[in-house]
Amino acid sequence: MSELQTKLQWRYATKKMDPAKAVPQEKVDRILEAVRLAPTSSGLQPYQVIVVSSVSVREQIKPIAYGQAQVTEGSHLLVFAAWDNYTADRINQMFDFTNAQRGGSTEAGDAYRKNLLANYTVRDPQVNFEHAARQAYIGLGVGLVAAAFEDVDSTPMEGFDPKALDKLLDLSARGLRSVALMALGYREADKDWLVNLPKVRRPSTEFVIEVK
Amino acid sequence: MSELQTKLQWRYATKKMDPAKAVPQEKVDRILEAVRLAPTSSGLQPYQVIVVSSVSVREQIKPIAYGQAQVTEGSHLLVFAAWDNYTADRINQMFDFTNAQRGGSTEAGDAYRKNLLANYTVRDPQVNFEHAARQAYIGLGVGLVAAAFEDVDSTPMEGFDPKALDKLLDLSARGLRSVALMALGYREADKDWLVNLPKVRRPSTEFVIEVK
Repeated sequence: MSELQTKLQWRYATKKMDPAKAVPQEKVDRILEAVRLAPTSSGLQPYQVIVVSSVSVREQIKPIAYGQAQVTEGSHLLVFAAWDNYTADRINQMFDFTNAQRGGSTEAGDAYRKNLLANYTVRDPQVNFEHAARQAYIGLGVGLVAAAFEDVDSTPMEGFDPKALDKLLDLSARGLRSVALMALGYREADKDWLVNLPKVRRPSTEFVIEVK
Repeated sequence: MSELQTKLQWRYATKKMDPAKAVPQEKVDRILEAVRLAPTSSGLQPYQVIVVSSVSVREQIKPIAYGQAQVTEGSHLLVFAAWDNYTADRINQMFDFTNAQRGGSTEAGDAYRKNLLANYTVRDPQVNFEHAARQAYIGLGVGLVAAAFEDVDSTPMEGFDPKALDKLLDLSARGLRSVALMALGYREADKDWLVNLPKVRRPSTEFVIEVK
């Protein structure tokens, strides 16, 4: 088994975290760095990650997440929040930043930017948001792997009221909409009903279709 | 730098792959296994991965992907295809399978199944598809990491006509809709304009918001 497979087998959607154990900041930072390095469509990175360590804020989030205990029993809660829309400003900012990083513009880059501006800024904002949300999920996938590599337990969660969370964290003012949560902490194995149950995935014969 | 960070820095959206180099099947299999192990909402795994190694089929896909060369210059093309809808059959199949794997049903599991059946099967199919597509993107993120761990180059691609691809691969008959591609192969570095350009990501001060 490859190291990655070992990590993927080790991780699970932790149901009971030990409220007495906090994830060290350097581990949180490395998890966030992996998410930041994750690829996104056209390199736009159309989402942000809000890291909530504040106990009082997480206590306010808990009812918004239907009482899921990991929100407060973990030590950090990552909120993945996607752009509510692609705008010319956002697209131009990322292209300008890329040009600055790479020492100038290119004809191909300029043409690509124009193409995105022409296509994205006229699309229904909801379509753009859904597209941005998918990119955030690439980051979520990478973040879950990164947590496992840090021997940190994590729970991805969609069970929450996005509008209520956006309001609490004032995400609309930033043009963001929350799409997924990821609690970080350490499993309290003897109190977790899921930890010893077999991981269930459809067999590869049903998951993979080969076209040879 | 952690090993994962090193891999994430190494990988990039390869623009030029060497058509003479094929990815060994055991590497493809380990990449697919990592994707299979990726978590999904409620464990439903609402997507499949189509692995296209056939040269002739990839030649037909190339124009559908606007001529992107990696489709044929790589050796394998993964098509991530999400469920077009959540149906009672699909939900029940996964819960039945899970119960079989874990040696029986539980009260909590049964209640959870009922809840999903009540909520998912009445939702607009497009909402369900978008939800399923997001799960596929978790797998895409994990797959990109897995490729890097196999020292295999990969290119995630959204630039294609999903309806045309669904038709070519007869995905509608399976209740699937293509959402993303991932070409696998080996970089031809001396012909790749992107390989030596710096990877550009927004600085963590702009990507991460801390709520302490």
